Amino acid sequence: MISVEVKTFSIETLREFSTRVFLHFGLPKADAAQAADVLASADLRGIDSHGVARLTSYFELLSEGLINPKPKIKIVRSTPSTATVDGDNGLGLVVGPQANEIAMDMAEKAGSGWVSIGNTNHFGIAGYYVLKALERDLIGWAMTNSTKLVTPLWGAERMLGTNPIAIAFPAEEEPPIVIDMATCAAAYGKIEMARRRGETIPQGWGINSTGRGTTNPDDIVAGGALLPLGSDRERGGHKGYGLGIMVDVLSAVLSGANWGPFTPPFALRQEVPARSVGKGIGHFFGALRIDGFIDAAEFKRQMDDYIRTFRATKPAPGTNGPLIPGDPEREAEQVRRKKGVPLIIPVVEELRAISQKTGIPLE
Amino acid sequence: MISVEVKTFSIETLREFSTRVFLHFGLPKADAAQAADVLASADLRGIDSHGVARLTSYFELLSEGLINPKPKIKIVRSTPSTATVDGDNGLGLVVGPQANEIAMDMAEKAGSGWVSIGNTNHFGIAGYYVLKALERDLIGWAMTNSTKLVTPLWGAERMLGTNPIAIAFPAEEEPPIVIDMATCAAAYGKIEMARRRGETIPQGWGINSTGRGTTNPDDIVAGGALLPLGSDRERGGHKGYGLGIMVDVLSAVLSGANWGPFTPPFALRQEVPARSVGKGIGHFFGALRIDGFIDAAEFKRQMDDYIRTFRATKPAPGTNGPLIPGDPEREAEQVRRKKGVPLIIPVVEELRAISQKTGIPLE
Repeated sequence: MISVEVKTFSIETLREFSTRVFLHFGLPKADAAQAADVLASADLRGIDSHGVARLTSYFELLSEGLINPKPKIKIVRSTPSTATVDGDNGLGLVVGPQANEIAMDMAEKAGSGWVSIGNTNHFGIAGYYVLKALERDLIGWAMTNSTKLVTPLWGAERMLGTNPIAIAFPAEEEPPIVIDMATCAAAYGKIEMARRRGETIPQGWGINSTGRGTTNPDDIVAGGALLPLGSDRERGGHKGYGLGIMVDVLSAVLSGANWGPFTPPFALRQEVPARSVGKGIGHFFGALRIDGFIDAAEFKRQMDDYIRTFRATKPAPGTNGPLIPGDPEREAEQVRRKKGVPLIIPVVEELRAISQKTGIPLE
Repeated sequence: MISVEVKTFSIETLREFSTRVFLHFGLPKADAAQAADVLASADLRGIDSHGVARLTSYFELLSEGLINPKPKIKIVRSTPSTATVDGDNGLGLVVGPQANEIAMDMAEKAGSGWVSIGNTNHFGIAGYYVLKALERDLIGWAMTNSTKLVTPLWGAERMLGTNPIAIAFPAEEEPPIVIDMATCAAAYGKIEMARRRGETIPQGWGINSTGRGTTNPDDIVAGGALLPLGSDRERGGHKGYGLGIMVDVLSAVLSGANWGPFTPPFALRQEVPARSVGKGIGHFFGALRIDGFIDAAEFKRQMDDYIRTFRATKPAPGTNGPLIPGDPEREAEQVRRKKGVPLIIPVVEELRAISQKTGIPLE
């Protein structure tokens, strides 16, 4: 096993760097800060693949003029509790937070708000958006479709993105429950890490280009695909596939974006889809007012009880017992706020390359 | 392998029998027919565990006076797009359809409708409710919590029900996409079938009473538990666990029902929970107006394209390629409407016992 070398940066350094990179492309000041905030949230929460590790992709797409740095976001259709938003081909990191606000504003008036967004781009971590809902005492949902990487159960090719679902529930004394999960069995980042380390991957993560299960991470990259959550028919792979479709339809078909295998790539190096069936990619946000259902204080007391009850579950042998969803990310954030964010050297080198091209200092 | 003997009944016979059994307990005529319709839907769609196979459990609970045959369903709180419903301890088969109507009515007015229902009982198949939404050109969601059977990832005891999620999307020329999935790796019915046949079960379905993975179906029954979708940490078992929590909180904490391990049992033989933290079990229904987002005809044309695109996925070796969610159930329904519903002999014997006790003829 090869140990992975890292260099640690304070979150302020990374946030400042990202903000200035976005400003470099002419984003309005508030939008640049907003986009950097979404990336910083990923880096703080330990979701390393979705933080500044992605800045190079955004940088390249902005450099090529493939993303609009000054989008005018538009509501194209609405009812009291639903809306469709056109993201004007802006950064998802800018469009997403604005569309999420629309959903939350509607929820405060109508009890709930549901927004499908088309003509947008990758929005960072889904968890960011549901944390924002918590700040307003709402139950938030966030989903997005993304570039194809995942095969349907019984398929032999990439047809769906990793299509995440996030939802969060507040408590009173306990920290909130924050669920943020891709609908595939394992993250693509884990495949890349296994390759870097020269390790095999577990059965159930992916298939090779002929559609057979593989434990060689190179096979996934070379024309293979990730498997949906559940992995195979016996263990419920049709369920993960169904969830992937759910996210795709709500995010992209409802909003008039590209869906399934036609979802445009996130990075310049990725394959351009065979057809265009809409505009950009799609997100879906929801917000529910807790006191639209139950007294909010009573709900939170029950959630305290809920969380404590689940923490007290009898542990499986060799474990410390079940976690509460959101625990690992919150703990990572506590550590990283103090000690900084460790970046692997290839990511540091990418950021340095951006620094050289733009003249923006990295530290 | 032991072959399983069956006896086939027409759906009309089963529907008539269930209706008369419910009438026997004093349910109003429309409610009895409604409850029988939910069971018939499961039997037609091949979800054998949730059809008349459950009539004995309903029969016993009604006989013991543990379910209210004449519930007065009440909206206890509402906003334009949300409501909490008290099911007055009625059959879920009666309360569920009424609460689902409330969600759909709200959606037609406010764009969306979200209803959390407490003080209710098991509601049959989640798919039934989203099929009803399709009849009104709505995107429907249905969830319910249920008696504990599933361990959290890294747990060694039952803490959550199989907590299903259903959602459906209409198309124009193609049949709709109907997703209806429990949030555990495998259905409890499959454990029972393996026991009956003297077979082992795959790794990843469940644990024994000490929390270790097992391939012996008897272990699950004897104090073990089912595993969440994803099965283990490597393959995303934390995701299935998160989905189980999501369903539980939306259905039960929002509505003031019992949640997690305190969800009351579905059958008399099941263990009574240690505490009561609310009333009955909980459901959660949602409905979205398609034209709250996009022209409904355009949506359906895109869904035709979507379904055809996914049907054309390159197949994995040894398969005919991916299915569209809802295909197997719709095909079962076509066959069973014509040829009848095959029931295993133990179920037939249970129905005959009800027939003897009530004097209601079975055929």
